[in-house]
Amino acid sequence: MRIALCIEYKGTQYFGWQTQKKYKNKTIQTFVDSAIEKVANHPVKTACGGRTDTGVHAYMQVIHFDTSSQRSNYNWLKGINCFLPSDIIVKDIFHVDESFHARFSVLDRTYRYIILNRKQPFILFNENFLHIEDKINVDKIKKTIKFLECERDFSSFRGAGCVAMSPVKKIKSISIKSKNDFLIIDIRANSFLYHMVRNLVGFMLDVGRSKIKLRDVKNLIDSKDRKKLGISVAPHGLYLYRINYPKKYNIKTKSQFKLSI
Amino acid sequence: MRIALCIEYKGTQYFGWQTQKKYKNKTIQTFVDSAIEKVANHPVKTACGGRTDTGVHAYMQVIHFDTSSQRSNYNWLKGINCFLPSDIIVKDIFHVDESFHARFSVLDRTYRYIILNRKQPFILFNENFLHIEDKINVDKIKKTIKFLECERDFSSFRGAGCVAMSPVKKIKSISIKSKNDFLIIDIRANSFLYHMVRNLVGFMLDVGRSKIKLRDVKNLIDSKDRKKLGISVAPHGLYLYRINYPKKYNIKTKSQFKLSI
Repeated sequence: MRIALCIEYKGTQYFGWQTQKKYKNKTIQTFVDSAIEKVANHPVKTACGGRTDTGVHAYMQVIHFDTSSQRSNYNWLKGINCFLPSDIIVKDIFHVDESFHARFSVLDRTYRYIILNRKQPFILFNENFLHIEDKINVDKIKKTIKFLECERDFSSFRGAGCVAMSPVKKIKSISIKSKNDFLIIDIRANSFLYHMVRNLVGFMLDVGRSKIKLRDVKNLIDSKDRKKLGISVAPHGLYLYRINYPKKYNIKTKSQFKLSI
Repeated sequence: MRIALCIEYKGTQYFGWQTQKKYKNKTIQTFVDSAIEKVANHPVKTACGGRTDTGVHAYMQVIHFDTSSQRSNYNWLKGINCFLPSDIIVKDIFHVDESFHARFSVLDRTYRYIILNRKQPFILFNENFLHIEDKINVDKIKKTIKFLECERDFSSFRGAGCVAMSPVKKIKSISIKSKNDFLIIDIRANSFLYHMVRNLVGFMLDVGRSKIKLRDVKNLIDSKDRKKLGISVAPHGLYLYRINYPKKYNIKTKSQFKLSI
């Protein structure tokens, strides 16, 4: 029996999703796997829909595991959550057939950056938003979309240590919304190179702050020279926001990402 | 020379504002005083406008201290902030005369509770909002205001261990706003008894969830019997939101509390 779970977590306290020997007990997967094992009452091996780095959050992470243990959905959810720390939660559970794979069935992933663009920081939400003091020109950023929303070689945005076979990725959509002091950038792609989202957003913000001129955008993207494209932005405003699977699996989250105070 | 500072902090990691021997290096004041001392280059003694408990945040805390050190406003702010951890920030600085006292000049204090009222929690903002799963009837809560918005004996909402001379306090206003899944309760009073805000909001929420009947509200408030009035709510949705001083001191914060995503 294959079960998929939709998970939300705040990444601030963790060294990313993936279990790693050197960060024993400090990655999210370590906690999630261990909680599932306690409820399933046998060892489990989970696969995830999108890895997240140190400090990166997930509004919708998807994992799957196999089990022969019989539990009601309610008991799976309540049971696993009662073994998880307060910054990780399993939100939804799905019974899937064995053709489903949390990683290999993915159609696309959406990462979201939430940027607070105003003079004053908002310390109360320091871990949730990226604070940028300089005024960002949103129209300028939007003009970069036409160069990025495509299938191409993204070597210019490839982080050091990336092990991807090919630098060619397909960005299916980039959405940029500006509301009061917030700027929300959603990037949806089949998959991403290492640090690609943070490098892309760093580049876009440099365009928005006129550190990079619009007339140079195309050449810089074509250059494949990471060093010319400015810095990678900090992880704390970044969310793994959505993972799309083929409709037949019906994997979606019921919760809503809406802040309005 | 007397200087007043307006401070914002996230209280999650601290045992409240006040320096206490048993919580050495774990209260907000310890960090703030030490940062000021480093910039002033002499020991300082600060007074604050409103104490906050373990886990309670402040959007606007006000303190004052005396110094003979000459620094520009920019250097005071930048200097102090560079010695503060990332969840505490000095936002504004004011030069005041010696008639000003951060505690004794206060006209009133406003505490804000931010409640997320929906089935699903929002783990990403777990430390900032109080999550209440049961549907809250806001109209019912609003009907408690007329019994509470007055000067009276608030013994029914007095926490154990309260050392206030008198249980009589004056609540100047209670504002209840409901927006999407959020409920925001602002309570403004000259001063508060120990745990009074958390007890008041716990009571109001019990009315809103029909755990307490409207017809019992008046009697319960009059009863002065803390045990009959339900539990104190958790601190993590609570903010010291505003402190009012006489206009002549011109103490206000420039930053905005606005979330809209």
